[in-house]
Amino acid sequence: MRLATLRDGSKDGRLVVVSPDGAACMSAPAATLQQALEAWTEVELALRAIDDFPEPLDPAAIMAPLPRAWQWLDGSAFQSHGDLMDAVLGITKPKTDLPLMYQGTSDKFYGPTDQVKFPDEALDIDFEGEFGVIVDAVPMGTSAAEAMGHIRLIVQINDWSLRALAGPEMKTGFGWIQAKPPCGMAPFAVTPEELGENWHNGRVCLNLNVDWNGQRFGAANGEPMGQGFHELVAHAARTRDLVAGTVIGSGTVSNTNFREIGSSCIAERRGIEVLDLGEAKTPFMRFGDTVRMEAVDPSGRAPFGAIEQKVIRG
Amino acid sequence: MRLATLRDGSKDGRLVVVSPDGAACMSAPAATLQQALEAWTEVELALRAIDDFPEPLDPAAIMAPLPRAWQWLDGSAFQSHGDLMDAVLGITKPKTDLPLMYQGTSDKFYGPTDQVKFPDEALDIDFEGEFGVIVDAVPMGTSAAEAMGHIRLIVQINDWSLRALAGPEMKTGFGWIQAKPPCGMAPFAVTPEELGENWHNGRVCLNLNVDWNGQRFGAANGEPMGQGFHELVAHAARTRDLVAGTVIGSGTVSNTNFREIGSSCIAERRGIEVLDLGEAKTPFMRFGDTVRMEAVDPSGRAPFGAIEQKVIRG
Repeated sequence: MRLATLRDGSKDGRLVVVSPDGAACMSAPAATLQQALEAWTEVELALRAIDDFPEPLDPAAIMAPLPRAWQWLDGSAFQSHGDLMDAVLGITKPKTDLPLMYQGTSDKFYGPTDQVKFPDEALDIDFEGEFGVIVDAVPMGTSAAEAMGHIRLIVQINDWSLRALAGPEMKTGFGWIQAKPPCGMAPFAVTPEELGENWHNGRVCLNLNVDWNGQRFGAANGEPMGQGFHELVAHAARTRDLVAGTVIGSGTVSNTNFREIGSSCIAERRGIEVLDLGEAKTPFMRFGDTVRMEAVDPSGRAPFGAIEQKVIRG
Repeated sequence: MRLATLRDGSKDGRLVVVSPDGAACMSAPAATLQQALEAWTEVELALRAIDDFPEPLDPAAIMAPLPRAWQWLDGSAFQSHGDLMDAVLGITKPKTDLPLMYQGTSDKFYGPTDQVKFPDEALDIDFEGEFGVIVDAVPMGTSAAEAMGHIRLIVQINDWSLRALAGPEMKTGFGWIQAKPPCGMAPFAVTPEELGENWHNGRVCLNLNVDWNGQRFGAANGEPMGQGFHELVAHAARTRDLVAGTVIGSGTVSNTNFREIGSSCIAERRGIEVLDLGEAKTPFMRFGDTVRMEAVDPSGRAPFGAIEQKVIRG
């Protein structure tokens, strides 16, 4: 099952169930995705019962599936990315088995084709291709095994980052505020079974195709996460109840063979250049640039649809 | 003007305007504080016009004035606290003029007398007495001078902290997740003019009396913030629009003469003990302990009312 949220003038939009071919939809029996998540066990059956899709799906009307959330916690679960970022930022982190995670701004997620405003190109504008999950209410102390059952939806995310600010903020130990403006989301939030065998061990085992200004930039696969999403959820819930609609991110999708398959963010490519060439060659984004992100399965199907965003001066 | 939110079974409660003596209230012309903040310039006049308070104010019905927020950004603007915390945690931060700030969980603020659950005493349970402000919508790039006008309400906060987790999380550079469960808020959100000359240069110039199990623990004054709240708001808004209802915190209230006037958190006292005695002597909180926090003006009036919370096993 795939869900989308359509513009209706409100901040939360209108929830619809999407037809299997992605061309049509039907209004959901819950007004918003947040409302559906707050009563998921009751709402899910009604959502799944829908098999008539009378409304053509207008791509221009699609917002983020969850246009705002009470909580956004982003991990950094791909070791090959973390190691490179530490190298390029000059960070030495202590060895730890704990998942890395920060809390980011969640009062707004950009829709898949929304233009994204930044104050200044000199802040080093970067995209980050990620996967994420949305949970229903998770009680404090939930184990990783139990957490798997709270993962109700899977999403694809562009975690916008301002790299000139990221290193200095990280060195404070307080995490990122200015370096992490709102993220974007791909059109469709999908239930785990929609991904079939490509949802495995709490990982989205799909290639995430990333194109920058029409050129392929990366096609990393989501399988090699150091922790599965269920483990990230349990980490987040150790000392707090997670409110229904909490979004948990994977961090930038990255594979150890990044020299062959490319990267899901510019900073990673720059890190590779630092390692291989002694200095970063690839510039960050300019106003007017576009990024496209689309996870595809081996048959070429894109379960989440595509993010396609242009950066503009704010 | 002082506002409070009363339990009505919903997550956001029912907004009331509080009588000058704090004994009675009147339902506000906006259902919730969030709604009032989203249309503040229209709603404020109607709120201020209320001069009849027919409903006795039941202290047991009082929730946090903003029981959940889309965003909670907490600073650490008291240098005497920051220096001590770095010493006790073994953190070496780079010198920077940037305000320190992290994003914390905001889907729930405990009410002033709510019991607070934690999974384990061994996580080193600590309180942190703070002041905070609540803004209406602040556009990206707002200056500090402009930000002053967006500060609509001032609140008093208990930023619950789990110190055993704080140092390790800080060293990752990602900031705090497990170390920062939900905060508590004092009963009343007050407009700036309610504080008179004690709201000055973006600072709450009041003593914050903190009592732990009935014993005075600290009485630090809010005046010596390294940055005023308007500067913290502008910092937060550099690369993002701040949604109406964003809460910005001061960090633990602390004064350089902490040996005389005490501290607003246990970790600071332990830091002093490390400096003076070579080791920390004061233990953290135990289940069943209470903390009371009440800012008072020179006449003994408590504009925010008092936080009085007990910690319990979660």
